[in-house]
This record gives sequence, structure tokens and C-alpha cells, in this order.
Amino acid sequence: MNGNYLELNVFFDIIGTIAFAISGAILGCRKKMDILGVIVLGLVTALGGGFIRDLVLGITPPKMFQNSTNAIISTVFSILVFIFYSLKQDFENSHWMKFMNKFMIITDTIGLASFTITGMATAISLGYDKKFLLIFVGSITGVGGGMIRDVLAGTIPFIFREQIYAGACILGATTFIIARHFCNYQISMVICFFAVLIIRLLAVKKNWNLPRIKN
Amino acid sequence: MNGNYLELNVFFDIIGTIAFAISGAILGCRKKMDILGVIVLGLVTALGGGFIRDLVLGITPPKMFQNSTNAIISTVFSILVFIFYSLKQDFENSHWMKFMNKFMIITDTIGLASFTITGMATAISLGYDKKFLLIFVGSITGVGGGMIRDVLAGTIPFIFREQIYAGACILGATTFIIARHFCNYQISMVICFFAVLIIRLLAVKKNWNLPRIKN
Amino acid sequence: MNGNYLELNVFFDIIGTIAFAISGAILGCRKKMDILGVIVLGLVTALGGGFIRDLVLGITPPKMFQNSTNAIISTVFSILVFIFYSLKQDFENSHWMKFMNKFMIITDTIGLASFTITGMATAISLGYDKKFLLIFVGSITGVGGGMIRDVLAGTIPFIFREQIYAGACILGATTFIIARHFCNYQISMVICFFAVLIIRLLAVKKNWNLPRIKN
Repeated sequence: MNGNYLELNVFFDIIGTIAFAISGAILGCRKKMDILGVIVLGLVTALGGGFIRDLVLGITPPKMFQNSTNAIISTVFSILVFIFYSLKQDFENSHWMKFMNKFMIITDTIGLASFTITGMATAISLGYDKKFLLIFVGSITGVGGGMIRDVLAGTIPFIFREQIYAGACILGATTFIIARHFCNYQISMVICFFAVLIIRLLAVKKNWNLPRIKN
Repeated sequence: MNGNYLELNVFFDIIGTIAFAISGAILGCRKKMDILGVIVLGLVTALGGGFIRDLVLGITPPKMFQNSTNAIISTVFSILVFIFYSLKQDFENSHWMKFMNKFMIITDTIGLASFTITGMATAISLGYDKKFLLIFVGSITGVGGGMIRDVLAGTIPFIFREQIYAGACILGATTFIIARHFCNYQISMVICFFAVLIIRLLAVKKNWNLPRIKN
Repeated sequence: MNGNYLELNVFFDIIGTIAFAISGAILGCRKKMDILGVIVLGLVTALGGGFIRDLVLGITPPKMFQNSTNAIISTVFSILVFIFYSLKQDFENSHWMKFMNKFMIITDTIGLASFTITGMATAISLGYDKKFLLIFVGSITGVGGGMIRDVLAGTIPFIFREQIYAGACILGATTFIIARHFCNYQISMVICFFAVLIIRLLAVKKNWNLPRIKN
């Protein structure tokens, strides 16, 4: 059972890595970075959340330095994004840009959902189980990579622009905590994943907005 | 005595948390973030300095993940700032903006002073007592939260814009080191607090400027 | 022999510190910061790479807090840059700006090369020897300080703008790994240093560019 739990954790780790690598690489391409810049932004986005998680939990050196799998996956997917962008000639075409914007939101959300889970799962595997700590570590792991990506690329982080971004993260993590009372680990993880995904994508689709100061 | 010393440390930790949460939330409101963005910026500002301090001193997981008090306090005060801003309708009014600018400088300075102290006190409580290390840890704890706040909000950090910002921090920390030779811990802390506060507020008031390159 | 190896590591650490302090201070002067801002930006650039390296390798408190030598060196060189800039009156003169731009690229590259080495050497001294980990730690130590400098100064990091920046780092680190099979530590370090230096300076000189997305 512990084995299965770990396997599912690894699965979400890889899914999140791929999704964030793609979202980082897309932003790099849109910012007209060269291929290595695109790879670096993909790597930073994909590995940033786990890096923060490991610093927070005192895992040194962080897992990304112990196992190169995720770095290789990130590099491969960043290169694929770059090639894909290169092939597409009518880059300025507004349809295409709109599509890539939407696509980036989806990959970003998958990364967010996956890393919220791996953040909590890693903390649990180290013996932590205070609810507040789990939600906090999950959220910071989820939003960390995208935040570093946006700061490095010189745009205001998603978390401050988008509807229900950190909110989806916190609600999803809370769902996980609740679900654990009724289901086993694996199912709770899957529920958390879809909770984050659905909340955020619905929010974007329906243009839900939290209150903000008007002029 | 050790008890009292710890209590005063906790006191400054809470004061600094409140002050930085307010300064982060004000910046969030001025940048027209939604309520969750305002809370996140408040949290990041309030907990950022302590997070850096704990990473530096090897305290994992950082205290903010062990004890949720400061996070809850930050959230509450960020919400209060948001409500306060919402009620005030004539937001564009230049008087009001000027007042909030001044108010943010004051809360930011209180946070700066408090966290300079908690940085040094935490290092001392772990057995460090090299003067240079204490001043360095104190200063980085003091300026850390505001620096993260400004980077995330996309403005040039205070530390590079304002008169005597890091200077107040370093001078205050030095005051603490000197005061410890004459007074006990608690009094040295209080002296340090007012040293940072007075130096920085006087500098802003009198518009003291350090030399800078002309054209 | 271990002694010599450590000495060379210390040598590159000091060279890198001086070079990055200068590059940080130059950017501070160009951004019209005051003298303390210039010193802080110099310090952050010079100590940032080592700070990240130590966090990654679990060295707490980071070496910069244990030994003040590098901080003092950074401060002195930042002040020298500031004085030098102050003396030069025709600051707007395009010749002068062009020269300082070039000079900053050179010091930045020396810092990059030095810290790539100290990153790998520190990891090796702690017993790590996986090739991938060494290249990764070396690269992140090399680019870390400059990245923090650029983010704080509000410019897009070099790593995303310049030709063959991270590339020089990764190639240099790989050279080190290969050289170790044929030469001893010290010579491998020197080879790595010149590899990074020559690759990057040639790239800037010849205006080599990696492919990037056209419009």
C-alpha cells in the first residue's frame, strides 16, 4: 500500500513536471527567448515547486539534484514546445496566440494540481500531519514554480492576476484533508487533483472573480 | 529571564508580522489585486523575512509551517486592509493616496525594526554570537519580506529606492550589539527597535539621501 | 594535495566574489541607486550564488554567515565602483557607457566561471560525485547571483537575454567532469574556468546566437 501511495506520488510528480515545463517553455517562446532560455524557463518552472518544497521540508540536496529524471523530462518537453512554435509560422495570428494562452492555462493548472499533491504527500511521508502545515506546504509547492517563472520572465505572477488561482490550490488541498477521512490515500490524491483542476478551469471559463478594489 | 527574553522575541515577531501584513496588503490593494491576491501578498511580506531567517539558520520546516498563528494574523489583517480600502470610495483622491503611502512607510518600518530583532534573537537562541553574523542575519530578516513583496508586485524593492532603508537596519542591529554590553537582552531589543524606527522615519521625514550618481 | 585543492577553491571563490560585486555595483550605479543600494546590489550578486549553493547542499548557516571575508570584499569593491563612477563626469557619454557595458560582461563572466567551479568543488568536498548533480549545482551556483541581481534591479535576467550564457556554464561544467579523468583537480578547475570564459566571451564577441522564435 505504501508502495502504491509512493507510485501515485511519483506519477503526479511527473505529470506536474511535464505540465509546468510546457507552460514555462510556452512563456519563453512568447517572450522570444532563445532555445536555451526556453529550456531554462521550462526547467525552473518544472523544478521550482519541488525545490521550494524540499527547502521547506529540509530535504538537502533537493530531490532534483539527486535524480535527474525530472530535469531530463523538462528539457525534452521544453525542446518539443520550441520546435512546435518554430514550425507554426503565423505566430502573430491572434487565433493561434489565443489558443496557446488557453493551452498554457491548462498545463499550468495541471502542474498546480499535481504539485499541490506532491507537496502534501512528501510532507506526510516525512511524518508531518498537522492540517494547516499540509495545506500550506501543498499550496506553496503548487504555486512556487509558476511564481518563479513569472518573476524571471518579468510578468506579474499568475497568482496575482488570475481568478481563483491560489484559491483553487487551497480548496483542493482542503479537499484532500477531508477526503482522507473517508477514502484511502490514492483516491484522496485523485480527488484533490480534480478538485484543483475543476475549480480553476471553471473559474477561468466562467470568468469568476474575487472582489477587488475598484478605482 | 530566558522566558522573558523569548516572550519579547515573540512580541516583536507578532508586531512585525502585523505591520508587514498591512504593508503587503496595502500594496496589493493599490495594485488592484483581488482579495486573495491581497491576502497572499500580505502573507508573503509578513512571513518572508522569517522564512529566509529560518532557511539561513537551518530551521526546517521553517517556523511558519510549524505554527499557524502568524499566518492567521496576517490573513486577518490583510482582510481588514482590504475592507478598509473598499469602504473608502474616493480612492483616487490624492490626499488619501498620500496618506496610505505614508502609512505604508510606517508599517513597513515597524516590520523592518521588529524582524531585525527576531533575526538576531533567533540566531542567538541557537548559540551563534559572532557580531558580523548577527548583524547580517538581522538585516536580511528585516529586509527579506519587503523585498519579496516588491519583486512579486513588480516594483523596484524599497531597499533600492528609499533613503536609509538597509542603512537603518544595519545601524539598528549594530546598536543592539553595542547595547548588549551595557543592558540586558530585553532592553537592548527595545533600543534596537527604536533605533531602526527613528533613523528610518527621520530619514524619510527630512528626506535624507545617501550620495548617488548624478546623470 | 587536499590543501591545494581547497586553496584553489578559495581563490576562485574570491575572484568570483570580486567580479560579481563589481558587476552588481555597476548595474546599481547605472540604475542611479544610492551608495548603500549599490553596495547591497554588489553584495547580493557576489554572495547570491554561494547562498543558493549552500541551501542546495544543506550547509546552514550558509558560508557567507560564517565568514565575513567575502562580504567585506564585496563591500569594498562596490564602494570602489561607486567612487569610480562618481569621478567620471561624462556619464551619459555613449563611449563610456559602451565601455562599462563591456566591462560588466567581462566581470559577470569571470564570476560565472568562478562560481561554476566553487559550486562543483563544494559538492565534491561533501562527497557527492554524480555527474549530473555536479553540473547542475555548478550551473545554478554560477547563474544564481546574476539572476538575483537582475530580478532585484528589475531587468530581465542575463540568462534569458544573452548569447550562450547558461550554455557556457553547462559546457564549462562538463569540461570539468571530462578533464577530471585526465588531470588532477586543480588543473581541471583551471580548464573549466577558461572554458566558461572563452565560450561566453567568444559568443558575445562573435554575436553567436542560439535559435529563437522569429515573430
